[in-house]
Amino acid sequence: MDARTAIRRKRDGGTHTPQEVQALADAYARGEVPDYQMAAWLMAVYLRGLDRDETMALTRAMLHSGTVIEFADLPGPTVDKHSTGGVGDKISLPLAPIVAACGACVPMLSGRGLGHTGGTLDKLESIPGLRTRLGIDEFKRQVREHGLAFGGQTEDLAPTDGRLYALRDVTGTIECIPLIVSSILSKKFASGTRRVVFDVKTGRGAFMREPERAHALAQALLDVTRALGYEGVALVTDMDQPLGAAAGNALEVVESIEVLRGAGPADVQELTFRLAGEMLALAGVAASVAAGEAAARAAVADGRALRKFREVVEAQGGDPRAVDDPARLPRAPRVIDVASLRGGHVVAVDAYHIGETIVRLGGGRLRKEDDVDPTVGVVLLKKTGDRVAAGEPLARVHARDAAEAAVRAVLESYRIADGPVAPGPLVRERIPAV
Amino acid sequence: MDARTAIRRKRDGGTHTPQEVQALADAYARGEVPDYQMAAWLMAVYLRGLDRDETMALTRAMLHSGTVIEFADLPGPTVDKHSTGGVGDKISLPLAPIVAACGACVPMLSGRGLGHTGGTLDKLESIPGLRTRLGIDEFKRQVREHGLAFGGQTEDLAPTDGRLYALRDVTGTIECIPLIVSSILSKKFASGTRRVVFDVKTGRGAFMREPERAHALAQALLDVTRALGYEGVALVTDMDQPLGAAAGNALEVVESIEVLRGAGPADVQELTFRLAGEMLALAGVAASVAAGEAAARAAVADGRALRKFREVVEAQGGDPRAVDDPARLPRAPRVIDVASLRGGHVVAVDAYHIGETIVRLGGGRLRKEDDVDPTVGVVLLKKTGDRVAAGEPLARVHARDAAEAAVRAVLESYRIADGPVAPGPLVRERIPAV
Repeated sequence: MDARTAIRRKRDGGTHTPQEVQALADAYARGEVPDYQMAAWLMAVYLRGLDRDETMALTRAMLHSGTVIEFADLPGPTVDKHSTGGVGDKISLPLAPIVAACGACVPMLSGRGLGHTGGTLDKLESIPGLRTRLGIDEFKRQVREHGLAFGGQTEDLAPTDGRLYALRDVTGTIECIPLIVSSILSKKFASGTRRVVFDVKTGRGAFMREPERAHALAQALLDVTRALGYEGVALVTDMDQPLGAAAGNALEVVESIEVLRGAGPADVQELTFRLAGEMLALAGVAASVAAGEAAARAAVADGRALRKFREVVEAQGGDPRAVDDPARLPRAPRVIDVASLRGGHVVAVDAYHIGETIVRLGGGRLRKEDDVDPTVGVVLLKKTGDRVAAGEPLARVHARDAAEAAVRAVLESYRIADGPVAPGPLVRERIPAV
Repeated sequence: MDARTAIRRKRDGGTHTPQEVQALADAYARGEVPDYQMAAWLMAVYLRGLDRDETMALTRAMLHSGTVIEFADLPGPTVDKHSTGGVGDKISLPLAPIVAACGACVPMLSGRGLGHTGGTLDKLESIPGLRTRLGIDEFKRQVREHGLAFGGQTEDLAPTDGRLYALRDVTGTIECIPLIVSSILSKKFASGTRRVVFDVKTGRGAFMREPERAHALAQALLDVTRALGYEGVALVTDMDQPLGAAAGNALEVVESIEVLRGAGPADVQELTFRLAGEMLALAGVAASVAAGEAAARAAVADGRALRKFREVVEAQGGDPRAVDDPARLPRAPRVIDVASLRGGHVVAVDAYHIGETIVRLGGGRLRKEDDVDPTVGVVLLKKTGDRVAAGEPLARVHARDAAEAAVRAVLESYRIADGPVAPGPLVRERIPAV
């Protein structure tokens, strides 16, 4: 393998054979191609692109760079969900137990907070005792016994993706659709699922701000998923304002439990049930998305979904009493109201700005090795379309101290105008359309 | 210095401030920016370019990354020549002593063979005993005492360029005009010259095959040279066929000595005297290029140039008797005539193909660490425009053994047709035009 040939080909806008992509990824995995050659190739890919077949070859090479989990004797078909990340996006927490309660098996592979966005693993770990570092055998056993496990990427699953992602992070090559696709899919399929519902976020708080880019990512995820012989469906959903009311690790667990109890913010309920319907339909457990949604609502209404969540929390070492009584979750010492300076209608709540505020409160990471504070965050009392009077609280900041900068930042995240405003649709697009 | 910011800026087609380029190069020099970040930046530069100010800032940073030689008490003004490299391009060998004999000082910084091209240092080292690894003090003293030293890049001169060049070599980022410019100029100006005549090659045996690319490189070299406060002139010259008759290390020394004796091939004489005229005019030693050429011819005619060469060879530890009697130079055991298969006129002699043939004979390097064989090479008996009869020798291969592949390759390098052909001009362009 002479990496220079591959680098020059992509540099000049050429197309790799699948064999060339495979050879490059394999040589990188073996340490025969050094980081600096891979970095040059990544930048050439960023600027020249990869077509579907090249992306497929890269995904396959990374997928097979480590253990590929294969399930046997499962009580139901596998299905997972992937969100491209946002602020207040706690959907995985209520969604996975709902779907598992309805008879599908969810080997859920989640991530940590990244930039201004939160991560499912960080949120779950605010439950006292809960472990997300599961060994592969433990992960498999738990899916078999409980229909659901919440795990994270380990050194065993798609290790080449892990190394390549770290390299992309420091070489300005993160925001590149074919590289994003191969990273997401290699991990997902290594974790044993045969089906994925993609929730691709768009708007101010998303990595793909423009709807066209979000659409392109969703389409690319589906194309490569199918080309590799897996099944998928994608939604493009709004991340202009944070999802739900709570943003911050333990605060989002509280809101997730509310949803599992049949309450919680309308947008979180809407997206949770819609994604549950999509997952159940994709897995063939429900005859249609609508039937899947109905099944999901029923599993919440009769308490099966909440019991499933409690059961899985306990299985992963978490304190199940925190599910019964969220007051047992860690709480920030200070809760500060953010009062509106004027009356009117909320026109926008900048999700990116809210997410950055939480990171600075300690709820996210500035560097990979940072610890996160589970208690801090922001609870939005007003969202886009709501009326607010001057002096009325817009939000509450949960913090370690007076957090004046955070209060100011939250205030700046709100745009308030005179006329009434209707928020846009939460689900902007489904691929395929029907 | 967060290299990611600079990488992203260039990736997105933005422009660096001079401070940003300087900070990046300095941080790389200190080891704070690793090779993989620099590799990503180099690829972004390859595909997005650097403007004059960015190239100037990179050149300046690399120039000042090590020792910058400053001459004092020299007997004349400094001037150097840089060729972008070709096959049979031994011009530096006769040129430098001619110019020094005419009263300018030549702190000549040369390179080794690269790819299919030969290198001045390799050629000089075929003279028994001659050393080109001069310490900086030795280099300075020799220029002061003899008006000429032949040196190479050391770890002291522009060390960041040395590291960056090695990185470019393995990351597909060599053929990029701003990177070529900064590499050439940082070394040249670190070696103490205030003036450079650039000989930018074009045609089959050149790195810039297309005249437009050669012109662009020449213009960029001049722009940055002047912006940095130095003086320069550029010629774009033909490298479609090899220069002169001899190609190969010791063989080219023999031909160079012929030129210094007032003989040798017409094209080598023409280019040597033209470049000497340009150098003497640029240095202010001659009133015009024509006057400089006349002075150069006079220095050859009366033997001063040859004596200067002999003196410098001796100063660098070489055996001066090899200058008096080139039969003392190492010679290949086998000399094989390459006979023409047909009669007609030579239409082309592919310089690239001849250069590659010499590398495979052992006269160049496949890898950086290879030794070169000083004896092997090709002597062209027929060049573009010449008549040849069937069976008449076109060239002679100097080799260690029967070298059948080389004989075949030389034969394939010649294109012979019926009608007479006039070779194109040797000097295709001068910048500035007058």
